Amino acid sequence: MINWKIEETGFNADKIASNGNKYLVGNGYMGIRGTLEEYEKEHLVAVNLAGIYDKVGDGWRESLNAPNGLYTVIRVDEEEYRLPNSDPLEHLVSLDYRRALFSRKTTWKTPRGKVTVESERFASLSEPHLLTMKYTIKADFHADIELRTGIDGDVWDINGPHYDNLSLIEDDGLIKVIGTTHEKGDKVCVTEGCNYNFTCEKNLTVDGKRILRHFSFITKPGISYEITKFISVYTSVDTPDFEKEAKQLVKECIEKGYAFLKDQHVKKWEEKWSVSEVVIDGDDDAMEALNYSLYHLHSIAPRHSESLSIPARGLSGQTYKGAVFWDTEMFMLDFFLYTEPRVAKTLLKYRIDTLNGAKEKARSYGYDGAFYAWESQEGGFDACSDYNVVDVFTGRPMRTYFKDKQIHISSAIVHGIMRYFELTQDKSILEEGGAETIIECAKFYYSLLLKKVNGQFYELHDVVGPDEYHERVNNNGYTNRMAKYTFDMAVKIIDSLDGFNPEAAKHIRDMYPVDDLKKKFSDASSHIYIPQPDKEGVIEQFDGYKKLEDVSVETLKSRLLHEKEYWGGAYGVAAHTKVIKQADVVTWLTLFPEDFPEDILLKNWNYYEPRTEHGSSLSACMYALLACRCGMPEKAYPYFMKSATADLTGTGKQWAGLIYIGGTHPAAAGGAYMTAINGFGGVSFENGELKAKPQLPPSWNKLSFKIIHLGKLYQVEATKEGAVIKECK
Amino acid sequence: MINWKIEETGFNADKIASNGNKYLVGNGYMGIRGTLEEYEKEHLVAVNLAGIYDKVGDGWRESLNAPNGLYTVIRVDEEEYRLPNSDPLEHLVSLDYRRALFSRKTTWKTPRGKVTVESERFASLSEPHLLTMKYTIKADFHADIELRTGIDGDVWDINGPHYDNLSLIEDDGLIKVIGTTHEKGDKVCVTEGCNYNFTCEKNLTVDGKRILRHFSFITKPGISYEITKFISVYTSVDTPDFEKEAKQLVKECIEKGYAFLKDQHVKKWEEKWSVSEVVIDGDDDAMEALNYSLYHLHSIAPRHSESLSIPARGLSGQTYKGAVFWDTEMFMLDFFLYTEPRVAKTLLKYRIDTLNGAKEKARSYGYDGAFYAWESQEGGFDACSDYNVVDVFTGRPMRTYFKDKQIHISSAIVHGIMRYFELTQDKSILEEGGAETIIECAKFYYSLLLKKVNGQFYELHDVVGPDEYHERVNNNGYTNRMAKYTFDMAVKIIDSLDGFNPEAAKHIRDMYPVDDLKKKFSDASSHIYIPQPDKEGVIEQFDGYKKLEDVSVETLKSRLLHEKEYWGGAYGVAAHTKVIKQADVVTWLTLFPEDFPEDILLKNWNYYEPRTEHGSSLSACMYALLACRCGMPEKAYPYFMKSATADLTGTGKQWAGLIYIGGTHPAAAGGAYMTAINGFGGVSFENGELKAKPQLPPSWNKLSFKIIHLGKLYQVEATKEGAVIKECK
Repeated sequence: MINWKIEETGFNADKIASNGNKYLVGNGYMGIRGTLEEYEKEHLVAVNLAGIYDKVGDGWRESLNAPNGLYTVIRVDEEEYRLPNSDPLEHLVSLDYRRALFSRKTTWKTPRGKVTVESERFASLSEPHLLTMKYTIKADFHADIELRTGIDGDVWDINGPHYDNLSLIEDDGLIKVIGTTHEKGDKVCVTEGCNYNFTCEKNLTVDGKRILRHFSFITKPGISYEITKFISVYTSVDTPDFEKEAKQLVKECIEKGYAFLKDQHVKKWEEKWSVSEVVIDGDDDAMEALNYSLYHLHSIAPRHSESLSIPARGLSGQTYKGAVFWDTEMFMLDFFLYTEPRVAKTLLKYRIDTLNGAKEKARSYGYDGAFYAWESQEGGFDACSDYNVVDVFTGRPMRTYFKDKQIHISSAIVHGIMRYFELTQDKSILEEGGAETIIECAKFYYSLLLKKVNGQFYELHDVVGPDEYHERVNNNGYTNRMAKYTFDMAVKIIDSLDGFNPEAAKHIRDMYPVDDLKKKFSDASSHIYIPQPDKEGVIEQFDGYKKLEDVSVETLKSRLLHEKEYWGGAYGVAAHTKVIKQADVVTWLTLFPEDFPEDILLKNWNYYEPRTEHGSSLSACMYALLACRCGMPEKAYPYFMKSATADLTGTGKQWAGLIYIGGTHPAAAGGAYMTAINGFGGVSFENGELKAKPQLPPSWNKLSFKIIHLGKLYQVEATKEGAVIKECK
Repeated sequence: MINWKIEETGFNADKIASNGNKYLVGNGYMGIRGTLEEYEKEHLVAVNLAGIYDKVGDGWRESLNAPNGLYTVIRVDEEEYRLPNSDPLEHLVSLDYRRALFSRKTTWKTPRGKVTVESERFASLSEPHLLTMKYTIKADFHADIELRTGIDGDVWDINGPHYDNLSLIEDDGLIKVIGTTHEKGDKVCVTEGCNYNFTCEKNLTVDGKRILRHFSFITKPGISYEITKFISVYTSVDTPDFEKEAKQLVKECIEKGYAFLKDQHVKKWEEKWSVSEVVIDGDDDAMEALNYSLYHLHSIAPRHSESLSIPARGLSGQTYKGAVFWDTEMFMLDFFLYTEPRVAKTLLKYRIDTLNGAKEKARSYGYDGAFYAWESQEGGFDACSDYNVVDVFTGRPMRTYFKDKQIHISSAIVHGIMRYFELTQDKSILEEGGAETIIECAKFYYSLLLKKVNGQFYELHDVVGPDEYHERVNNNGYTNRMAKYTFDMAVKIIDSLDGFNPEAAKHIRDMYPVDDLKKKFSDASSHIYIPQPDKEGVIEQFDGYKKLEDVSVETLKSRLLHEKEYWGGAYGVAAHTKVIKQADVVTWLTLFPEDFPEDILLKNWNYYEPRTEHGSSLSACMYALLACRCGMPEKAYPYFMKSATADLTGTGKQWAGLIYIGGTHPAAAGGAYMTAINGFGGVSFENGELKAKPQLPPSWNKLSFKIIHLGKLYQVEATKEGAVIKECK
């Protein structure tokens, strides 16, 4: 069995950035990078907030980092000891990902003896606004200690600074920092109170953007001096009374104390694991990697809201602007659908509630219906820039087409809503805007359909498919298939209106000429061009793909002139070759395996697999899932592990051109989960019935997990012989 | 009046390349760059041949340069004197462009005295295979001279060498070099014979790729020693008997002598000028520049053939692969139509005879009909590369879309054929393949038409218009309008079949379902989307143009990071701005001024003029012509002069990315002619009647010229008061 803990001994400054992701704690309201208490902005410290954004000047709009209430540094005998400046004698960081506890322990050798600091922190799963830390200091001599701890308002930003002004305040024994954002004047309020168990001299200073308590004392050898910090984080978007509530929460926590709060937090986590833990008998590495991935998904689930989604890099910082991508619907959703459907609904409600933004985006391009944001922020605002990559050779922004041509995004929303409905039969999601969303997405695709005057099919031209290395292509198979699916789902919705509550049905019927739309969408579905396998069984990814240069990924690497150069775009090394960034046809076949006989699935897997760079963390799991579908769990396994270890190894792509794209990879985590459950576990829902046809990798003896289906919890025990499914009572 | 001569005194090595263009002589069969006799390939010497091409390895297919039969160097007292190595005391080159005679005179100071060489050369207008030179040497002391003259087979190539082997032969007093081309094994045979009027020691050597006669003698002070060379150039494509005919021609010429041949040549040129000279009273600079431009057009007119066209850089070398562009039909054709319609027919017959190549090209892209080559070589082979520009920052070829998306090329062929027919009423051109060509071009555009499933119009997407800086645009106004024109002309042709000779009419009716095509083309013409003026009267160049950054040409220049970087492509400085390379909407309005009221023409001129870089020599004349149409001859004038002096100043663009594009600019020459005659002269043909409504620039008192209309020659005398048109008897 696994010990639910990752740790690292010794200090390596090169890992400051990647450990910030790997040791992250979060509770869906905020994510706290796994950085040390004494770190400042140059070490990528972040208390990254969900769902609140700001834009300054010409910079990209991005999520906010709150002032850091964990900030703590020590002086020993008037000398400052801090990483990475002061080499430690011993150093350990660890993450208990069962209980979501970050801890560190560092010992420095000073001229007079050794000093050790330890800390433990968690973002409370029972109280979304609460961040808590215990910090202890111990010396083996009579050390003269000055401990400074408080709130650091000098936050790390990629496109900041976002706070036009910061108020640094002492109030009733608490300290707080209130920042006012540039664009909308939102307030972010971080309030801190603390307990400590020793006598000392105290002082309070404001030093630039930091407000700090100073504790001066002399240690007795071997005695631990402990301070516990209770930090509340609120914004004016949460409540107009944010300041008052923040203070009240801290006051209450001071009363309750660290142990009690930790206990509450751990219990909440145990509740989560009691449903979501996946047990893999025979492969501890896989079990650890997978559950560690699920830890990350749990840590960023927006349980405090009814309408909020998860950014592509979770809550690990401002990478990708803190924006929501198709990652959520296509890769993360299944985990929540299976283990916590309420969160799945929250994620989808975010899309439903941003329908107006999607309609505005469609209108801005002259299209009808709903064109969802490629990089969605609040209100559905598309944060994606037309110039999303920087040319390493000229330093110029490159015109990219993620925003305006990656039209498959809208179909991902439809897929998410319908998958939620299929697995829960909770039609409230359709009645509460889901039906309208699906119809608007269908209208969007309908307005894009082109027909050659002397042709028969309807086509979609000038798009970017999942494989972003090939821009502006015609008839991307995945996109066309998803558009067809969208038309089909819209027809299905219209056909099922009689089953809606009368008000919801009337709303739709008042709003749309449903008979006319049904006719149009049916016609579109039956005429849209869907590329078919050629005589080798291979489906062409887009018109003309087969004519491109057939070359290996390795050869392309050898053609690079600059390690950070972008492979896509008009002239990238991959652009005019068959090498693709990520699963594209394979994603289609994974979603719709019934479109073709199994030998066609296999032929396409075999064809595209060696031509895929996997430059996206979304890629591996699609190859893994289709491999399972084709009866090749042994070929799926390395792709599964690649997905499951994306954040554990921290070796993912850090750069797209000159843009930093590091952070956590929740879509890979979700993909690993899907591979385990749907792929190896072989879970499916045939005619509303839960089935499992396992395909375990060679080393796995048993795969056990629970899933929720139609509101009931089931235990699935999958072995090489088959699966046993039992309802949990 | 002008003196019909350009000259340059003093020697400037920096001008070797540009003077090669400026002092070019040619006769349509070959062009001889204005280089000196002692120059070798590094000085861009070329005897460039019309209509014969070769490809070696991965290089571009390009026209051939023949071995250089003019090659001559001297030694004086055993010391070599040659430019650019030996600084001259005096130096003069000149071109008598009335008589098409190149001459040079150079004096060197040697330790014992001065030596002067003079030469005169012409490419015979009466005998296309003949190149003739007189070379004299004179010293003011008893100079010990060794003159070496012969044939230099070590030719300049851009993508060569093209001769797999060279035979260097002495035969019956003549010398010859026969090269065998790499791709097809064509033979190029240069034969030389000479006369001389002095006694000397003679010798013959073969030195690498050169075969040279050596003449050694001692000069008497003040006496000229003259050698005349008769060089024939033949290829195996001309005749299987090329070797014999070449020899025979040289033998005959030796008999006839230089003076006689020169007299024949000059008489032919006088014949040309008797029709084509344009007299501008009041502006010698303009008259000189214009007639110098016409000299270039005459020099490259393929009078020796019935089916041959003119490359975009004339016969000035291998730039642009020696290929034929739309330049010929849209910019050069009018000059020949007005002054020598037989040449116009020859140019168009080349396109008609390459219809199969155009059909093959269309088929290769999955289109119907005829898609003419963007860079046409023999048989209609498209020499255009998919990678036609080199990225200056990476040295990598850039994917360009001239070949596959500049679909307006086919309409230029239709326009040329119909213009020939309209001005000559010679329907043989239609009967001899022109009708079929037009129908195939209409079929081509028909197969490209797209209709939005929920739209009404037919659209053309993903094209490149005349403004090549904006790639892959939808509904380029010029392209759509020319497609409509093509549909209209095809319908007109079908309607006029009864007037064809019965055999030609039957051929068309057998070949095509003409009633069905007529219906389709009429429908296409009435539904194709033609952008209309907005409320400011401006026609959007293509969908979305108005949303681009509005910035000045100067600002773009300031953004350049490299002087040779390409402005277009996906990321060029112009690509996402309103700055355009060349007249685009303005070209449309120049061709179809009746599409809109005059104020719309003017508003578009005013809008696009400051946004045009004029990065193409095709641009200025369109602005000049439309300015005349709008009653602004003073605004037309600088654009006219820019066109007319394109080769005189030699300041045109020399580079597109890292690709050399220097050479002569016959399209600019043709554009200058059109501006003079159609613009300032105001010539038009209303209902088949020749009219002239002059709009003279302020400084012009009178503009006089002759033009041929419906087979008759007319004299036009245009003044500010109006025009007098008289038939010449």
